[in-house]
Amino acid sequence: MISCPDKAGIVAALSTFLYENRGNIVDIDQHVDLEEGVFFMRVEWELEGFAIARDGIAAALAPLVDRFAMRWELHFSDIVPRVALFVTKDNHCFYDLLSRHESGELRMDIPLIVSNREDLKPVAERFGIPFRHFPITAATKEAQERAEIAMLREEKVDLVILARYMQILSPLMTEAFPNRIINIHHSFLPAFPGARPYHSAHKRGVKLVGATSHYVTEDLDEGPIIAQGVTPVSHSDSVQDFIRKGRALEQTVLSRAVWLHLNRRTLVHANRTIVFG
Amino acid sequence: MISCPDKAGIVAALSTFLYENRGNIVDIDQHVDLEEGVFFMRVEWELEGFAIARDGIAAALAPLVDRFAMRWELHFSDIVPRVALFVTKDNHCFYDLLSRHESGELRMDIPLIVSNREDLKPVAERFGIPFRHFPITAATKEAQERAEIAMLREEKVDLVILARYMQILSPLMTEAFPNRIINIHHSFLPAFPGARPYHSAHKRGVKLVGATSHYVTEDLDEGPIIAQGVTPVSHSDSVQDFIRKGRALEQTVLSRAVWLHLNRRTLVHANRTIVFG
Amino acid sequence: MISCPDKAGIVAALSTFLYENRGNIVDIDQHVDLEEGVFFMRVEWELEGFAIARDGIAAALAPLVDRFAMRWELHFSDIVPRVALFVTKDNHCFYDLLSRHESGELRMDIPLIVSNREDLKPVAERFGIPFRHFPITAATKEAQERAEIAMLREEKVDLVILARYMQILSPLMTEAFPNRIINIHHSFLPAFPGARPYHSAHKRGVKLVGATSHYVTEDLDEGPIIAQGVTPVSHSDSVQDFIRKGRALEQTVLSRAVWLHLNRRTLVHANRTIVFG
Amino acid sequence: MISCPDKAGIVAALSTFLYENRGNIVDIDQHVDLEEGVFFMRVEWELEGFAIARDGIAAALAPLVDRFAMRWELHFSDIVPRVALFVTKDNHCFYDLLSRHESGELRMDIPLIVSNREDLKPVAERFGIPFRHFPITAATKEAQERAEIAMLREEKVDLVILARYMQILSPLMTEAFPNRIINIHHSFLPAFPGARPYHSAHKRGVKLVGATSHYVTEDLDEGPIIAQGVTPVSHSDSVQDFIRKGRALEQTVLSRAVWLHLNRRTLVHANRTIVFG
Repeated sequence: MISCPDKAGIVAALSTFLYENRGNIVDIDQHVDLEEGVFFMRVEWELEGFAIARDGIAAALAPLVDRFAMRWELHFSDIVPRVALFVTKDNHCFYDLLSRHESGELRMDIPLIVSNREDLKPVAERFGIPFRHFPITAATKEAQERAEIAMLREEKVDLVILARYMQILSPLMTEAFPNRIINIHHSFLPAFPGARPYHSAHKRGVKLVGATSHYVTEDLDEGPIIAQGVTPVSHSDSVQDFIRKGRALEQTVLSRAVWLHLNRRTLVHANRTIVFG
Repeated sequence: MISCPDKAGIVAALSTFLYENRGNIVDIDQHVDLEEGVFFMRVEWELEGFAIARDGIAAALAPLVDRFAMRWELHFSDIVPRVALFVTKDNHCFYDLLSRHESGELRMDIPLIVSNREDLKPVAERFGIPFRHFPITAATKEAQERAEIAMLREEKVDLVILARYMQILSPLMTEAFPNRIINIHHSFLPAFPGARPYHSAHKRGVKLVGATSHYVTEDLDEGPIIAQGVTPVSHSDSVQDFIRKGRALEQTVLSRAVWLHLNRRTLVHANRTIVFG
Repeated sequence: MISCPDKAGIVAALSTFLYENRGNIVDIDQHVDLEEGVFFMRVEWELEGFAIARDGIAAALAPLVDRFAMRWELHFSDIVPRVALFVTKDNHCFYDLLSRHESGELRMDIPLIVSNREDLKPVAERFGIPFRHFPITAATKEAQERAEIAMLREEKVDLVILARYMQILSPLMTEAFPNRIINIHHSFLPAFPGARPYHSAHKRGVKLVGATSHYVTEDLDEGPIIAQGVTPVSHSDSVQDFIRKGRALEQTVLSRAVWLHLNRRTLVHANRTIVFG
Repeated sequence: MISCPDKAGIVAALSTFLYENRGNIVDIDQHVDLEEGVFFMRVEWELEGFAIARDGIAAALAPLVDRFAMRWELHFSDIVPRVALFVTKDNHCFYDLLSRHESGELRMDIPLIVSNREDLKPVAERFGIPFRHFPITAATKEAQERAEIAMLREEKVDLVILARYMQILSPLMTEAFPNRIINIHHSFLPAFPGARPYHSAHKRGVKLVGATSHYVTEDLDEGPIIAQGVTPVSHSDSVQDFIRKGRALEQTVLSRAVWLHLNRRTLVHANRTIVFG
């Protein structure tokens, strides 16, 4: 995936580079941000038959990178991302991710589960995944986050998923994993940020409740949005009904966002995502 | 339609009253706000064969009203509501309401169209509806609103529809027509209140855009919500695309809200609507 | 829940009966099928303080039942329904129901899981629920279904959920549990009935894929529909993408239908459901 | 827009051709049908500054066309498509298209309106568009369609929109305008093809009603689907409510399909559309 200032000839240069090296293009997508004059592209090609070895691709691309002032990322689809799940006590997104992992829909390894509570330890054990308990208080937060970061690095974790993790991450964590932490917020952001969004939505009398999956940044609930969804509610629904109806929505939206990330279909620019769906 | 403190026996008393007076119930709906202990009910019955004359119903209901401390409204479905449309320059909601009026879907009389500009005068003329031009500046606003209110009263207008009317109403107007002014706001409220919501939504990078129809109160974009909808957007949509995709949504949401109001299916309590859909 | 020929006075009679016996109405919903002249009602009231004992209610209602030729069902919300899950190899609906059961969203006991294969036995064991393997071939089908029915009866099962169970039930089974078997079909019925609906949908080039949850009758995929949903797809989605996108939808639609049934919010009449949502 | 057998080097060749001739690419989209091995591409570039004159582009492309066995179409965005609207008596889609035309959302000229009845003649006159009445009986159908085709050709019509036109077109017409006739069908195809789909949907007890816009082919309701949508319904909705709720949906789906066609974002292959949305 590349991004660079928009300039004539990028598609031609890159597709010619691949063609001349016998790279069979499987998928190609591009987007131009006309306001900011930035060009984005995602190209997926087969390595079988490709004339350049894996570790030589960067060097071979260097002239193009220079010519167009490209920023780029290269991912190999046979390398399975390592993911840590952060949970607290709600189990619906947690089970949903585990079942999609088990069925092969979400290609990832899950070397560890992190929680500030012990409620879901039995579920982790049921699936045979190490469960790490990091209780957090205002006093211990910084130390615990440092310990978590150390553990995530040791486990070579590529992606953190907050599956209804009910702790706000400090900048320590968000800066350690930029665009690598995915959260599910149970509202249609930017409506109802912060705590207890279903309660706020009920009080406001909305006719739809939403869910938003986004990359986590230092600014709470303000990170780049990956996926959103809504479901209808009515005056006869209590807050508990909002919560119940929202659960299936949260699962749907979070699992979609995770799939998009794992399949390298998201790019972040200017606090927005480009989703090559 | 009635509302009263929740108390045992309301349904029994009211349905017995109708049964004993040979009122055939066509539709009955109730809702209890458990938090606030308020009971709401909508009963629709046929006047043909009903033992009490139209103008005697209020007196006949008086004992029940006293017993349960009821607030009530009585509407006769053969009396067609009189509606004023307020427009500015966007024509999509305007045409949509006029065509639904013409086809009989929306049962209403439209004695006048009000606008702060003259752009849509030809459309009003095409449909043979009087068009009143009230240009508004900061200096003239109060006087013009007073003139509008006088005209609305003279025309015995029951409902005002802001069909993309791009002026903020002052408390003069909102207090003159409480729960009688319906607006369409082009966002999923409470997200993106105020001006240029599609621009804000684009900047925030949302994946769905919304529309909200609500009763207008003194607090801008804070009134009771009647209907909401959303439609998907992506990174490849420009602000102009948001605006285009939003148009069909605004029509759909506004016409639904107007239909609900005209068919007396909405009740307002505590800044929320009860919609007997 | 009652149904009877539509006749004046039903609401009055029933609500008066409850009021006079000090039954506090929690929820009341009614529907009249105007074409067929049938009246339907769901009333929920509190037993605490009610003047009639549980086992006396039927006798006390008898005069009303006679007068209006009512058909009625009485359910006590403190009696937890007993449910059997039928599965084959897809795990997404299975896990979803188990996690909603675990969280308390779905109030049911699950005394057994039935499958024609052994793939999901480890999941059942993980949750500590007895797993019964009934392999089925054309030759053994009748005998196996009889054995299943015997076991379901022995376990006093109230409801059977086909959570992507990939066997067609014979009339033996559907007649043994009328309006007591809920299936999830992975299309927007009546489009794409039968096998491999995502393949058919892909071939037809639809722009939305659907899921339908319905009561199972003798006629395959023709039973009364409880809930439906759709999700957008595009030309760039393969059949595998349809299947993936459909999974979250199937979970959402099935769990909603099961919740409605368990909370006694569905009535069946003339192959359609009345859903008091 | 091009389609051709999938083969390495197409993107490289075409983008290099444009780059070398100073064609600034505004938008590029491609799709590979892996099952059938067909490659599809839509490229939009600016003519300003392009080295080749309009009428020379075909010749300049010839070598590429030969090399890749391309089928291609070339459209100039400053040439406004000429469109005929076919209507019968329902006015909602008709008004909707006329208002989007008036606001500039739909860039098209409308030289004529065709109808088998005279109900909507006053609307056409209101907009100052010639209205042609072609009454049709079984006996006159062929002659009338021949007359319509002659008139459409004389007016150089590029696209025919059936805006709730309630006559089935014969192969005479569908063959005269292949992939140039857009219909709106008021169901979620392939569910409920043919006449009175809302009645059938009501009888079946579905929980969502749909609308489908498609290119018209010889096989009724079987043509390539361009856009689809759904809206929720319940047991309390009558057939008339289905019809009412469906109207806004039909408008939304039809206007979206027309916009996609007018902006040359649709390609047809194997009875499916590729929609470069």
